[in-house]
Amino acid sequence: MKLDKGQKLLFIGDSVTDCDRAKPDGEGLFQALGNGYVSIVDAFLQSTYPELQIRVVNKGVSGNTVRDLKKRWEEDVICQQPDWLSIMIGINDVWRQFDSPFIKDHHVYIDEYENTLREIIESARKVTKQLVFLTPFYIEPNSQDPMRIKMDQYGDVIKRLAKEYDAILIDTQQAFQSVFTELYPAAIAWDRIHPNATGHTILAKAFLRAIDFDWTKK
Amino acid sequence: MKLDKGQKLLFIGDSVTDCDRAKPDGEGLFQALGNGYVSIVDAFLQSTYPELQIRVVNKGVSGNTVRDLKKRWEEDVICQQPDWLSIMIGINDVWRQFDSPFIKDHHVYIDEYENTLREIIESARKVTKQLVFLTPFYIEPNSQDPMRIKMDQYGDVIKRLAKEYDAILIDTQQAFQSVFTELYPAAIAWDRIHPNATGHTILAKAFLRAIDFDWTKK
Amino acid sequence: MKLDKGQKLLFIGDSVTDCDRAKPDGEGLFQALGNGYVSIVDAFLQSTYPELQIRVVNKGVSGNTVRDLKKRWEEDVICQQPDWLSIMIGINDVWRQFDSPFIKDHHVYIDEYENTLREIIESARKVTKQLVFLTPFYIEPNSQDPMRIKMDQYGDVIKRLAKEYDAILIDTQQAFQSVFTELYPAAIAWDRIHPNATGHTILAKAFLRAIDFDWTKK
Amino acid sequence: MKLDKGQKLLFIGDSVTDCDRAKPDGEGLFQALGNGYVSIVDAFLQSTYPELQIRVVNKGVSGNTVRDLKKRWEEDVICQQPDWLSIMIGINDVWRQFDSPFIKDHHVYIDEYENTLREIIESARKVTKQLVFLTPFYIEPNSQDPMRIKMDQYGDVIKRLAKEYDAILIDTQQAFQSVFTELYPAAIAWDRIHPNATGHTILAKAFLRAIDFDWTKK
Amino acid sequence: MKLDKGQKLLFIGDSVTDCDRAKPDGEGLFQALGNGYVSIVDAFLQSTYPELQIRVVNKGVSGNTVRDLKKRWEEDVICQQPDWLSIMIGINDVWRQFDSPFIKDHHVYIDEYENTLREIIESARKVTKQLVFLTPFYIEPNSQDPMRIKMDQYGDVIKRLAKEYDAILIDTQQAFQSVFTELYPAAIAWDRIHPNATGHTILAKAFLRAIDFDWTKK
Amino acid sequence: MKLDKGQKLLFIGDSVTDCDRAKPDGEGLFQALGNGYVSIVDAFLQSTYPELQIRVVNKGVSGNTVRDLKKRWEEDVICQQPDWLSIMIGINDVWRQFDSPFIKDHHVYIDEYENTLREIIESARKVTKQLVFLTPFYIEPNSQDPMRIKMDQYGDVIKRLAKEYDAILIDTQQAFQSVFTELYPAAIAWDRIHPNATGHTILAKAFLRAIDFDWTKK
Amino acid sequence: MKLDKGQKLLFIGDSVTDCDRAKPDGEGLFQALGNGYVSIVDAFLQSTYPELQIRVVNKGVSGNTVRDLKKRWEEDVICQQPDWLSIMIGINDVWRQFDSPFIKDHHVYIDEYENTLREIIESARKVTKQLVFLTPFYIEPNSQDPMRIKMDQYGDVIKRLAKEYDAILIDTQQAFQSVFTELYPAAIAWDRIHPNATGHTILAKAFLRAIDFDWTKK
Amino acid sequence: MKLDKGQKLLFIGDSVTDCDRAKPDGEGLFQALGNGYVSIVDAFLQSTYPELQIRVVNKGVSGNTVRDLKKRWEEDVICQQPDWLSIMIGINDVWRQFDSPFIKDHHVYIDEYENTLREIIESARKVTKQLVFLTPFYIEPNSQDPMRIKMDQYGDVIKRLAKEYDAILIDTQQAFQSVFTELYPAAIAWDRIHPNATGHTILAKAFLRAIDFDWTKK
Repeated sequence: MKLDKGQKLLFIGDSVTDCDRAKPDGEGLFQALGNGYVSIVDAFLQSTYPELQIRVVNKGVSGNTVRDLKKRWEEDVICQQPDWLSIMIGINDVWRQFDSPFIKDHHVYIDEYENTLREIIESARKVTKQLVFLTPFYIEPNSQDPMRIKMDQYGDVIKRLAKEYDAILIDTQQAFQSVFTELYPAAIAWDRIHPNATGHTILAKAFLRAIDFDWTKK
Repeated sequence: MKLDKGQKLLFIGDSVTDCDRAKPDGEGLFQALGNGYVSIVDAFLQSTYPELQIRVVNKGVSGNTVRDLKKRWEEDVICQQPDWLSIMIGINDVWRQFDSPFIKDHHVYIDEYENTLREIIESARKVTKQLVFLTPFYIEPNSQDPMRIKMDQYGDVIKRLAKEYDAILIDTQQAFQSVFTELYPAAIAWDRIHPNATGHTILAKAFLRAIDFDWTKK
Repeated sequence: MKLDKGQKLLFIGDSVTDCDRAKPDGEGLFQALGNGYVSIVDAFLQSTYPELQIRVVNKGVSGNTVRDLKKRWEEDVICQQPDWLSIMIGINDVWRQFDSPFIKDHHVYIDEYENTLREIIESARKVTKQLVFLTPFYIEPNSQDPMRIKMDQYGDVIKRLAKEYDAILIDTQQAFQSVFTELYPAAIAWDRIHPNATGHTILAKAFLRAIDFDWTKK
Repeated sequence: MKLDKGQKLLFIGDSVTDCDRAKPDGEGLFQALGNGYVSIVDAFLQSTYPELQIRVVNKGVSGNTVRDLKKRWEEDVICQQPDWLSIMIGINDVWRQFDSPFIKDHHVYIDEYENTLREIIESARKVTKQLVFLTPFYIEPNSQDPMRIKMDQYGDVIKRLAKEYDAILIDTQQAFQSVFTELYPAAIAWDRIHPNATGHTILAKAFLRAIDFDWTKK
Repeated sequence: MKLDKGQKLLFIGDSVTDCDRAKPDGEGLFQALGNGYVSIVDAFLQSTYPELQIRVVNKGVSGNTVRDLKKRWEEDVICQQPDWLSIMIGINDVWRQFDSPFIKDHHVYIDEYENTLREIIESARKVTKQLVFLTPFYIEPNSQDPMRIKMDQYGDVIKRLAKEYDAILIDTQQAFQSVFTELYPAAIAWDRIHPNATGHTILAKAFLRAIDFDWTKK
Repeated sequence: MKLDKGQKLLFIGDSVTDCDRAKPDGEGLFQALGNGYVSIVDAFLQSTYPELQIRVVNKGVSGNTVRDLKKRWEEDVICQQPDWLSIMIGINDVWRQFDSPFIKDHHVYIDEYENTLREIIESARKVTKQLVFLTPFYIEPNSQDPMRIKMDQYGDVIKRLAKEYDAILIDTQQAFQSVFTELYPAAIAWDRIHPNATGHTILAKAFLRAIDFDWTKK
Repeated sequence: MKLDKGQKLLFIGDSVTDCDRAKPDGEGLFQALGNGYVSIVDAFLQSTYPELQIRVVNKGVSGNTVRDLKKRWEEDVICQQPDWLSIMIGINDVWRQFDSPFIKDHHVYIDEYENTLREIIESARKVTKQLVFLTPFYIEPNSQDPMRIKMDQYGDVIKRLAKEYDAILIDTQQAFQSVFTELYPAAIAWDRIHPNATGHTILAKAFLRAIDFDWTKK
Repeated sequence: MKLDKGQKLLFIGDSVTDCDRAKPDGEGLFQALGNGYVSIVDAFLQSTYPELQIRVVNKGVSGNTVRDLKKRWEEDVICQQPDWLSIMIGINDVWRQFDSPFIKDHHVYIDEYENTLREIIESARKVTKQLVFLTPFYIEPNSQDPMRIKMDQYGDVIKRLAKEYDAILIDTQQAFQSVFTELYPAAIAWDRIHPNATGHTILAKAFLRAIDFDWTKK
């Protein structure tokens, strides 16, 4: 188990992270962490390692691209001083290029994506002890699908940056890949983006494995 | 223009036909035809051929499979005595096999699909003058996608029955195909099933062409 | 087809244009263009000419007169830098004179109407490539009706300005005229102003014809 | 003043009578008489002739034609045993022929209108002391308007029946006519049917005059 | 008839005047004058004297005392420049002394009442042609009731000021008195303050009589 | 303390008893006893005599007269088999005579009131051990007020029946009388019927005194 | 892993099982399994063993005691023909004795609890292949707490029956016990009954362990 | 009775005090004092000592700790200039340490609790005549429960400060203790904090006893 006693673990991202979390705090009573993978990760941490006293905070905001993250980075990340910072961003950066192809202002192309990520990561690494990067994903098994190809390219940026910044990398696309032989995308997400409980559990399992969570611990 | 003066044109189907139409009537004031392709077809008929006095009725019901159509066939089709009957069914028959793979009671396999269709068509042809069959569709350009393959098979049933029963056939899958070179599915339907205004217009244009609608008529 | 690849087409007007569009943006996902003629025009453009990548924006606001347009012209038109600008205004300028006859502050008389139009058109022509003017209309076949007479006078201003500013002119009153022999106004608009789907389709067809839309293009 | 002490005065009709009255009772506390002409008539009766103890009941139902009245006549009129019975019906019988021209099932043509009226009047006259007939109306000054012509024909039926059955006749069309020189229809009713407070006051004044209401009584 | 062509008549007061009027304007379409005596007065003016083109504005606000009127006097009265100004205030000034006896901050005693009235009347008389004062009232027939006694004292202030400022005086208490022999207060207002339709009609009749409204005019 | 261990105490009545109690049960979790005097009585019983395990049930229904009680007597009283039965009814029997004077069907005159009471009391005394009668009341200090006079007459019936049936009598009118020297009715009930918290506490104190509640018990 | 391919696993119980599941079906799209331990179990099954095609159904109903289960047993269990049946009941049977001590009708004492359980288990074992019994629990670490003592007694019944009927036993009380050294009950359930996400995860982990779920399977 | 004529009694605290009181005022018509112990105290004062004209104000705010009280002390206490000031705070200061153990920012430890209390009491004693301190409480009979132990420690601070500042002390924990022999906590508060009507009555009785309320006064 990689987390130490009393650490704060902050998740930031888009609607997949948000999942109706309490705003603005993103922590506290009454399902404040939302109902997605962040809440599952927290529930497994608290039920299995209560003695570690991990504090989980959810700062996901629906619809966000990396451009939006940059605008709220100071308040939602730097001021929070998290020990661990988990970032999953890029889905909307890509999706808008496909669902709103003619509104180019809404697109975040790959150069801006990478440059903005570098900028916010640089600022974050001064206040956090450990970074976790989750690739953006697309619940589409056809690797020749144009949006899947683009999402994979954005995912490659994340993989490259993870190496560069010594972050723990979680390849979410690969995590979903494991069920594609048995489950059609519609059984996980009607729009191939917003996962149901099964899909969020796939993300949470991938995260927990990446931090060496001990499933057999009582 | 194939419709004659004073004829009643009834549409039946699932959520793509329904589109929040007035229930139970499916016709009348205040956008009673819903906001999908049925309403577009009606608006073009009324604005271009008001002298024909075509009466359009919408009997779509969200979530319906052919099994559901059969249950309400007597009341919603036979009692209505439509001159023209347009049927588009099969999407949910297929979709449930992919989004709820383990709830097999909710699946309508291809034999039941064809047999039930035959049964209701037989009963309908006694009261209607002209049948129109629209294939079920899937807004997925990848013809090797498993759900697309299955949907195409159900579409083939429709094509066969159209020939057999001398119905006008509308190949909706082909209609969508025409924009796939330019538009990604997400620009037409987030879940690849429920079309936005552009998608419904594609369906309506296909229908209007099939009845020899004269676009240049003032 | 008069529009070129990648152009932005902005519609501004009153409730007939607005039709519950997304505010403030007036474009984007989830039926952001509203449910009136703007959405129909867009759906025909996207489904027929997807390769042109036309970006349609709806800036209609219910209840607006030309006086209201002037107040938001800088933000809603100039800043948007549209290639094409379509204006339909004047209905409320006239209507208030008839439904609220004693509240004269709410009336916009014909001189103010023309002068304000000139002012905003002058400012717009510097940023747009092509203007489209739609006359205000009144779904009243009786040309001797006092409000119809007044609306026709405001329409004449539009016709004059179209000539003067080299704008494409769409005579909406004439467009509705074509169905009056068959349909009573109440079949198009209960209050003779807010069109139902048939009425909005009449407006959309007139617009599409004016830009040389090819109905036979697949 | 034609009403006697302790009499019950029942109004029946369509939405113009209904006006959000309490259902099913149509009398009692909390604005149970609705907010239209029935409430105005009642308020003037109670405030001016409280000693007469007139009991006013409102049995209007929105959308009703004479065909609907017949269905609920036994329960809503005969069982109520009103001393005075006021009937205003026919607007929807005519309107549907103009706003839903192709749904002929919804039309009540003039023969059915007259025959049904005769039938319900015959049954009512056995239980009531005095009948009051209000013509259906259309707030349209142009007497050559097709729907106005039709409404006048239905009004003529009412006039004829009033004579035949010795009912007090109230010519509502004529009552509205008196303001047409000064007010455009839109100042009374946006859809030329549902009156605003001014329009309902015109109806109430006509009713009160017909029963010899003394305006100068303190 | 005391009002001249084209005059503006503004009503100000508390909840009895307010009656759910449109805010902030207090005039316009869609029952903007509320559903109390102001709307009845307007409806009788428009239906009987449409040629006078009287513009009625309602600036009543629920719960107001004269202290509240003073705060909004500049905006709601002076800026409006009404030809006629009708004031009914004082009910809450008195009522709070009886329903909230220990919250003395909420009470407006008679000296403050008179002084504040003088102050706002002085400012109003410079912009209006004619003042109308309605006494506050209490729908309580027992003249020895303590709150009735107090309300009568406030009413006496109004009577005195009416004489002093040459205003038309409407003795609303006396108007209600006329029905007390026949109707118990609960038949007009459950809380003896907020009138039902009958009560508002009593107020409206008193107002219309005071301006020499001709009930026999067609 | 007159109640014995384990007894069931059932309250029946109108809106003063109802106070938004849970329906249909009238007991259980989540403020099921409503927010009026029944809840206050229960809270004092449970907090002071928890060892007595008194079960309190509230069967009040807003708007009820004794005529309504009779209709639901079998289900709401007899089937409940209460040890103690507390009845407060008559306010609406009287009130309707004053607020709806012309709707005589809604009035319950004093003979029907007494006879119906006798009938239901006779049936109840077979299943209950002790009856408690609360007089109906009117929060009006003026004993010459016509509705107060009538309410006192109905109260006299209750007093007579209490003696006759050996019931505990609670003179609610007298209970309110005690505060009239200091508090105006509006400080207890805006409509002189529905008490605020102070008024309900007056009722509860009177009830608790009548059952010899020991206020000094810890 | 004890479940076989294609088996149906049905959960029945009270609010801890229900968790806002879809009614009446308890399975299907859109989070139909609710948001409690049933959904977590399902999500882990589907994401880890998709090839097993397990069908999970949730038939929990809030507030239920074993008495309520019996009433709906035929419809909700027997007709469903589940291969696996998981039962968790008894919390409300006990709780009502403590939160509603004087409403003894709502209590289900231990004899009725055991007898009813035997009855429904007998009927279920004929249609299911495997039973799973979860003890009722109380998130209260103090084993001398009176309600905890009682809940433990009901839990003992479950343990005994599990042995007798060869059911898989899950000791939920013990599962919660494991976190009590670190977490106070309020961190898992404000009312010590309804678990938050952490509490439901404790239940789900216990269930998954009991069926030999392989956490390391990819 | 310790309160004198015309005094203002202000209550401040957390959700137990708040109970849905009117905001921001905390006094006035329509149950402005909320539905907890403050309202009960007020109702007993007004119904028993109306001649004292006590003005009760409720300034409780749900979720508050002493840290929150300090922020609003100037506005909600000092500006109000109460003669009597009743403070009950500390429940959330303790509770957050147990229900959100890892969010340490939300905890108010005992030193900060005492110091902040001293600070606000010092400032309040300059404007008030009499202070009343209620200990925070926990409806948990087990005195060895960790949260009960902590709450008792915070209660001891209150007891000490009461002595030091000459405040009337109300030991709420002891007040609840008296019913624990008969009632389980769940019968008073599901979450052992928010009392039902019985629990609020226990608090109100304790308060009224502390001010020498005379229960026998009529």
